[in-house]
Amino acid sequence: MLSFLINKSELEKKISVAANAVGSKTVDPILQCLLFSLENETQIYATDMQTFVISKLNVYEINGNGKFAVDAKLLEEIVKNVDTEQILFSYDMGKLVLKSGKSSFNLSTHSEPDKFPQIELEESGIKFELETSILSEMIDRVLFCASTESAMRALNGVYWEAKGGYLRLVASDGYRLALTEQKVNIDADFDFILSLKSMKELDNLIKQTDEPILTVKFDHKKVWISAGDITVIMRIVEEVFPDYKRVLPKVFKTRIIFNKEEFLEALKRIMIISKRGDEKVRLQINDNILVLNSQSPEYGEVNEEISIEQEGEDLSINFNPKFLNEAVKKIEEDEVVFNFVDDLSPMQINSKDVNEYLYIVLPVRA
Amino acid sequence: MLSFLINKSELEKKISVAANAVGSKTVDPILQCLLFSLENETQIYATDMQTFVISKLNVYEINGNGKFAVDAKLLEEIVKNVDTEQILFSYDMGKLVLKSGKSSFNLSTHSEPDKFPQIELEESGIKFELETSILSEMIDRVLFCASTESAMRALNGVYWEAKGGYLRLVASDGYRLALTEQKVNIDADFDFILSLKSMKELDNLIKQTDEPILTVKFDHKKVWISAGDITVIMRIVEEVFPDYKRVLPKVFKTRIIFNKEEFLEALKRIMIISKRGDEKVRLQINDNILVLNSQSPEYGEVNEEISIEQEGEDLSINFNPKFLNEAVKKIEEDEVVFNFVDDLSPMQINSKDVNEYLYIVLPVRA
Repeated sequence: MLSFLINKSELEKKISVAANAVGSKTVDPILQCLLFSLENETQIYATDMQTFVISKLNVYEINGNGKFAVDAKLLEEIVKNVDTEQILFSYDMGKLVLKSGKSSFNLSTHSEPDKFPQIELEESGIKFELETSILSEMIDRVLFCASTESAMRALNGVYWEAKGGYLRLVASDGYRLALTEQKVNIDADFDFILSLKSMKELDNLIKQTDEPILTVKFDHKKVWISAGDITVIMRIVEEVFPDYKRVLPKVFKTRIIFNKEEFLEALKRIMIISKRGDEKVRLQINDNILVLNSQSPEYGEVNEEISIEQEGEDLSINFNPKFLNEAVKKIEEDEVVFNFVDDLSPMQINSKDVNEYLYIVLPVRA
Repeated sequence: MLSFLINKSELEKKISVAANAVGSKTVDPILQCLLFSLENETQIYATDMQTFVISKLNVYEINGNGKFAVDAKLLEEIVKNVDTEQILFSYDMGKLVLKSGKSSFNLSTHSEPDKFPQIELEESGIKFELETSILSEMIDRVLFCASTESAMRALNGVYWEAKGGYLRLVASDGYRLALTEQKVNIDADFDFILSLKSMKELDNLIKQTDEPILTVKFDHKKVWISAGDITVIMRIVEEVFPDYKRVLPKVFKTRIIFNKEEFLEALKRIMIISKRGDEKVRLQINDNILVLNSQSPEYGEVNEEISIEQEGEDLSINFNPKFLNEAVKKIEEDEVVFNFVDDLSPMQINSKDVNEYLYIVLPVRA
C-alpha cells in the first residue's frame, strides 16, 4: 500500500518531457509505461531503450514506498484533464487509484514494474556546462537538415564536435548541410552523433525547462543532459560522421546579397508551380538582378525578379526550392548571402552579418 | 485576346466560395476548373455537377470578351500569394498570363472552355427570403448529426421542411437526430433533402457573405440561394426522408437538469477510458446525483459524479459518450435537460430555456 499527493501542474510538466521518450510501437509493453519509484526519493522514468528520461517528482503526504508502471499516454491524458490542482495517488496490489475532486480513476498497471529497464549513471568521463538558450538556438539552426530516412545511419541525427573551446553542431541529409558553432567552456576535444529522436527529446527538454544552465556528461557511450530535476540520457549512434569539411566551399566566383523577406515571398510563388512540376527553381544572376523561374509541363510557368547586390560573375543554377526555402527561413537577420562556386558545386548560404551558422545546398541538374 | 484588371481581395473572396464546389477527384478535368466568362457581365463558375456556384466579378479596364477555364486550386493558391492588390489577367490562344508586380504566371487553360457545364436558372417555383444569421445558426445546430456514410442516401444530408410559416431542418445518422425550427416568412409548404456536400457549400457561402438576407428559390428539382453577387445552386437528393416524428419521445418518466460545463468536463474524462474500451458511458440517476461510469478491460475504469435537478424515477442507461458530447456542446445556454422514457428508448436533449432546437440520442445496450 502506497499513497501520495501531487500537484497537477508539477506532474503535467514532468510527464510532458517524459512521455516523448516512450516508444509508440515498442515490442515490450513496459516501454509504453512511466515507472513511478518512491524509495529514498520520488522519481519517474521513461525510455524507449535509446533515450532515457529521469525526473524528480515533488510529492507530499507520502505513505509507504514501492514502484509501479502505468501507461504513459493514458496518464498524460488524465492529468491534463483533471480539474483540481491536487491529485491523490494510491497504489495497492497492482491497482492504481487517482482521485481528483469528484473524479476517480481505477487503473491497471504493469504486472512486473521491476522489469522496467535501468541505466547506469556513470560518474567517469567528460563533464561540462552549457547555456540552455545557446544550445536551444544551435539545435534550432541545424535540426531540420538532418535526414529522416537515410541509408547512412550517421546522417539520421546530429553531429556534435567539441574542439579548441568551440562546440559545433552539424546535420546533413546528403543534399544539404547545416553547421553552427559557438565558443563554449569545454576543455576536452571529442565528438559524437545523437539520433534524431534523441535530439528531439533533448529539444523538448530544453523548451520545457526554466533552468538557464544545462549539465552535460559524456562517457563515450552515452550523453546525459540535466536541467534541474530532469535528466535525459541518450545513447550515441555508433557510426562515423562523413567528413563534412570537404563539402564546405573555399573559393567563390559569385556572391549575391539580398533581402530575406523579398526572396521568401518570391520563392513561395515559385513553389506553387514547382510542386506541380519537377521541384526545381532556376536562379539566373545577371547585372544585379536575380530572376527565379519554375516550370510545370501541365500547369505552366512562373517568373519572379528581385534586386540583388552582385559580386563576381553572372550565373545560372538550379536548386530544389524547398531546400532554399528552409535554409533562408532560418537566417535570423534581414540580409542573406548566397555564395556560388559554379553551377555544379555546393552553394553556401549565410547571414551577411553573423558568422555563427551557415547552410550548404547542392544544386540539381538543369 | 482578352485582358482585365481585378483586385486580389475581390478575386480571393469569390474564389474561396467557388473553389469548394470544385470536384477534387472528378472524372472530367474541366470540373476541376473555374470558368471565367466575360460577355455582358463578368462571372466565374464552379461545379461538381451536384452543386453549382456562380459569382459576379468586379473587374475593370476590360479589353475584349470571351471565356477560359483554369485549374481552380492553382489559381486560388496564386491569388492568395501575390503581393500586389491589383492583378492583370491576359488571355490569348489558350494561354493565361497573370501579372502582379514583378511576378508573372504563364498558365495553361482547358482546351474546350465551351464544354463547361451550364445550369438553367428557372424563374418558376417557390421564392422566399431568409435572414442569413438565422439560417447560419440553424445549419450549425443540425449539420453535425447528418450521416457521412449511411447506406440510406436520405440520411447523408439535411432535410428541409417548410410548413405553416415555420422552417424546420432535420439531420440524422440513424443513431441520433437533430431538429431545429424557426418562424419564417414563407407562404408555401414544401420539403426537400440537400446533400451534405451541398450543405457544406451553402454553409461556406453563408460564412463568407456580408449580406444580411438570402434569396432562396426552389423549383422542385433544385434549390438556389443567392447572397449578393454569389449564387449557389444545389440539386436536391431525390429520396424520401424517414418519418422522424415517430422517433420524437412524447411522455417522459425521468427528467434531469444540470450545468452544461460541469457535464462536459466530466464527460471529457469519461472518454479517456471509453475510447480505450467499448465507447460506452453508463449514466446512473439516483437521488439528485448523476454518476457517470466507463470501463476498459485493459486500462481500468473511471467514475464521475455531478449534482443534478431530478424529476421522476431513478434510472440507469448507457450511451455512446461521443454522441452526448457533440449534442450537449451545441446547447448554447448554461442549463441542459435530458428527458428519458426508459433505458431502451430514445432520449431527448434540449436547452432548459430555449425551444428552437433539440437532439435525440438512442441508448446502447449495457
